[in-house]
Amino acid sequence: MNEHFADRLLNAIRTKKAPVCVGLDPVYDRLPPAIKDQPDFNDPRDRAASLDAVLEFSRKVIHVVAPLVPALKINIAFFERFYGEGIDAYFELVEEAARQNLIVIGDCKRGDVGHTAEVYAQTHLSDPDFDDVDDLVAPDAVTLHSYLGLDAIKPFVQVAKEESKGVFALVQTSNESAAEIQGFTNAEGLTLAEHVGRLVNTWAGDHGLMGRQGYSCLGAVVAPRNPDLTRRLRALMPNCLFLVPGYGAQGANAEDVKLCFKDNGTGAIVNASRSVIYAFEEPQYRDQHGENWEKCIESACRDFAAKIAQSIGL
Amino acid sequence: MNEHFADRLLNAIRTKKAPVCVGLDPVYDRLPPAIKDQPDFNDPRDRAASLDAVLEFSRKVIHVVAPLVPALKINIAFFERFYGEGIDAYFELVEEAARQNLIVIGDCKRGDVGHTAEVYAQTHLSDPDFDDVDDLVAPDAVTLHSYLGLDAIKPFVQVAKEESKGVFALVQTSNESAAEIQGFTNAEGLTLAEHVGRLVNTWAGDHGLMGRQGYSCLGAVVAPRNPDLTRRLRALMPNCLFLVPGYGAQGANAEDVKLCFKDNGTGAIVNASRSVIYAFEEPQYRDQHGENWEKCIESACRDFAAKIAQSIGL
Repeated sequence: MNEHFADRLLNAIRTKKAPVCVGLDPVYDRLPPAIKDQPDFNDPRDRAASLDAVLEFSRKVIHVVAPLVPALKINIAFFERFYGEGIDAYFELVEEAARQNLIVIGDCKRGDVGHTAEVYAQTHLSDPDFDDVDDLVAPDAVTLHSYLGLDAIKPFVQVAKEESKGVFALVQTSNESAAEIQGFTNAEGLTLAEHVGRLVNTWAGDHGLMGRQGYSCLGAVVAPRNPDLTRRLRALMPNCLFLVPGYGAQGANAEDVKLCFKDNGTGAIVNASRSVIYAFEEPQYRDQHGENWEKCIESACRDFAAKIAQSIGL
Repeated sequence: MNEHFADRLLNAIRTKKAPVCVGLDPVYDRLPPAIKDQPDFNDPRDRAASLDAVLEFSRKVIHVVAPLVPALKINIAFFERFYGEGIDAYFELVEEAARQNLIVIGDCKRGDVGHTAEVYAQTHLSDPDFDDVDDLVAPDAVTLHSYLGLDAIKPFVQVAKEESKGVFALVQTSNESAAEIQGFTNAEGLTLAEHVGRLVNTWAGDHGLMGRQGYSCLGAVVAPRNPDLTRRLRALMPNCLFLVPGYGAQGANAEDVKLCFKDNGTGAIVNASRSVIYAFEEPQYRDQHGENWEKCIESACRDFAAKIAQSIGL
């Protein structure tokens, strides 16, 4: 655990030959019938039953993908939806994934002023300081909003530095309306995404944050919506690992995401969520594996990792 | 509950002659000794004990301020810090405040792409669709990040429209480093804060979102860091109520926040958190009320409301 976050992630990518991460954002309605139809789980209006179903599914996904990928991104929104019990379930899954040697990215996208950011950093990135939950495991890294500037990032980076963890600050997102704000441009033709990217890269290069392989514990979320912009961001941000959303269900292909990597094939980890965890809905995988939904996810995960690895020559 | 959120808030401000809101962001270490020293509560490393202490304090604050102000802003970070039990405690306090006729703003600052935003909107703004928690009360309004554009706001606005609730999108924040990003300026001299403000104002004017008194259920968080900028934002955003942080402990005074109101004295609600809820630490109030910490909070809350009301001639 004392190894620098970026080095740990880069080594795990190399070991598994997979510069990718699986995103876990399960909704009850899309769970495989083999889980949803179990008598204990079969009631979407029963919070405990539906949360149990989501947990059962999530644990199985973790076991299927753990040998294949270096990292798992868990989106807390889909657990927060079950209120307190859901938050506890989220942390259980973080622990379960860590036990399977996955590097866990908590996709919580928090962002608030300094004294609130300290509290969020303690909750989401640090080990707890309460006796009754001292076995609780916080994620290895989290996602954060950048709009408030360094204040809002610093408390997380401090924990990351002290506890060998990581932070990914939002620079360019994958959604349709991203450009409305992120495309705001200054007199020199620099977009807001580039301005934020430049700042994040500067913060990332601060004393004590860089690992041995040339990357900081402060990385960035960069979605490849526009090839030119992706190239410019990659050039502007040499210190930062990119966590890359938008692949698969959100529309980006292997050529798009390739631009998030440096020429040496390092610098990014590509996430796919729905295209992997719901692979059992796809004829392509159903034809192969029938009702065996775990095999469908395994195949989709292998295909995804191979495609990205191949595109960068790993 | 069928009255439009903005009308409801404006009427409550008028009734209580107080265009203000108290912010609840309690940390165990700063609780009054009268609470912290109770044998049941006196252990910061015991999660249940310290959460109970925070809850006891919060309930009493709610009862003290409910007759004096129209609204309460609860910062979820300070409850999330206690993991699942903390989230449940947060919703208990939302319910308690609603029972005391306070309009409750959930300061959760979430912000994610569309399909995740839908899930967050369901959790944080809508009534739950689980049978076992069908008495759970969601806040009347929430705070949100704007960096992702309309996608990330729309699911919340949809709930707000259907359930007579409100949304405050971040435009200008109160922290030291806010200008690093929010001050990014285009060729016409427009800052990012103004660009975002203009967009939010446009979205706010959409079909079916405006109330009877000229304000939308989509408002904005606008901190008065710079008088010129505050004036420009107020002029650019006629459709939006401003939720105004930064007063008191964060440094803004009554003259600064006055600029967040229109000339007719409507258009903003000013928040103070620490300067009210920790008033028992201030010699000014201790001299008056000794160890009676609730009286200290009551006096600080009255002074705060009177000062802001006076500055706008209410």
